[in-house]
Amino acid sequence: MKKPLLFAKELVREVLTPGDIAVDATCGNGHDTLFLAELVGPEGKVFAFDIQQEAILSTQKKLEAAQLSERVELLNTSHANEAFWPPAPLQAVMFNLGYLPGGDHEVITQPKSTVAALQIAVTRLQPGGIITLVVYTGHDGGEEELEAVRNFCTKLPQKEYAVLEYKFINQINRPPLLLAIQRLTKPTK
Amino acid sequence: MKKPLLFAKELVREVLTPGDIAVDATCGNGHDTLFLAELVGPEGKVFAFDIQQEAILSTQKKLEAAQLSERVELLNTSHANEAFWPPAPLQAVMFNLGYLPGGDHEVITQPKSTVAALQIAVTRLQPGGIITLVVYTGHDGGEEELEAVRNFCTKLPQKEYAVLEYKFINQINRPPLLLAIQRLTKPTK
Repeated sequence: MKKPLLFAKELVREVLTPGDIAVDATCGNGHDTLFLAELVGPEGKVFAFDIQQEAILSTQKKLEAAQLSERVELLNTSHANEAFWPPAPLQAVMFNLGYLPGGDHEVITQPKSTVAALQIAVTRLQPGGIITLVVYTGHDGGEEELEAVRNFCTKLPQKEYAVLEYKFINQINRPPLLLAIQRLTKPTK
Repeated sequence: MKKPLLFAKELVREVLTPGDIAVDATCGNGHDTLFLAELVGPEGKVFAFDIQQEAILSTQKKLEAAQLSERVELLNTSHANEAFWPPAPLQAVMFNLGYLPGGDHEVITQPKSTVAALQIAVTRLQPGGIITLVVYTGHDGGEEELEAVRNFCTKLPQKEYAVLEYKFINQINRPPLLLAIQRLTKPTK
């Protein structure tokens, strides 16, 4: 059985095709940005957010090594900053909630800005499109963020969105879990 | 995103190969029994339990139509009846918890016997093998059964088993959810 991080990628791979627009809402070390850039192809585009310059630089390096920089717009700002989101309908949006692995553990994603970004993502998602949130809860504030995000998710209308929770329930060390949102119907505009 | 019933099948399909032994702990109308019989091939075997004769007959009919009867042992008894379980290491065990669709809604699986069967299944599962439980909770007693099963599952040692919970969380009509158990290590005996 796949771990949440891998299963998130599987869900995205099922729906994201060349020419699509995707967002990496928390680019971190750039793994997901690179993954999305490969899937959208030369005609598609990825917008990758991170408030930490360290993360942006690390991602940039990865993209250059893979010669995929042209497909990606790196945004060194908060994902809650709506003006920077692409206007086009989105086919995939990926979040990793917690702190930057190997970085400053004091800098963590925050419930308020995460939910604000999620609200933007949900609204711009096109039918069939998917949002994945891999949520780490082992750090201070992690459980509160999960609660805020989960609360937002459970209120999404079931006729328009399906929200999946995918988690391992017999582990004592608080492993990450996955929340995934798929838009079902046509946007009501 | 796949519904729990379909995702359960996907998990089983990933691990069950020709020659394996599988159990359908609640054969109901025989859908899962047929599915398992196809996967184990002519060298494998499926043991299918149901306390309702109606379910056994319905499953028998399906198997005959598919010419797969020889691969299946139909057992018209409780899945908690340990003497009827195959001694061999099991690669897949499927449960559907609730009542027989189209049958008597008063006859439902019960927490006590379900947990007893699950205990047998967990012990006989071979490394890499999977148990799936699709749990319906819309009927009287459904929530209590889920609680009993989930309680059992969360206590399985994480070094030996991974337990996944897979559910849609924004639906008001109590949809079925999936619990899946995979054995990770060599049996200790």
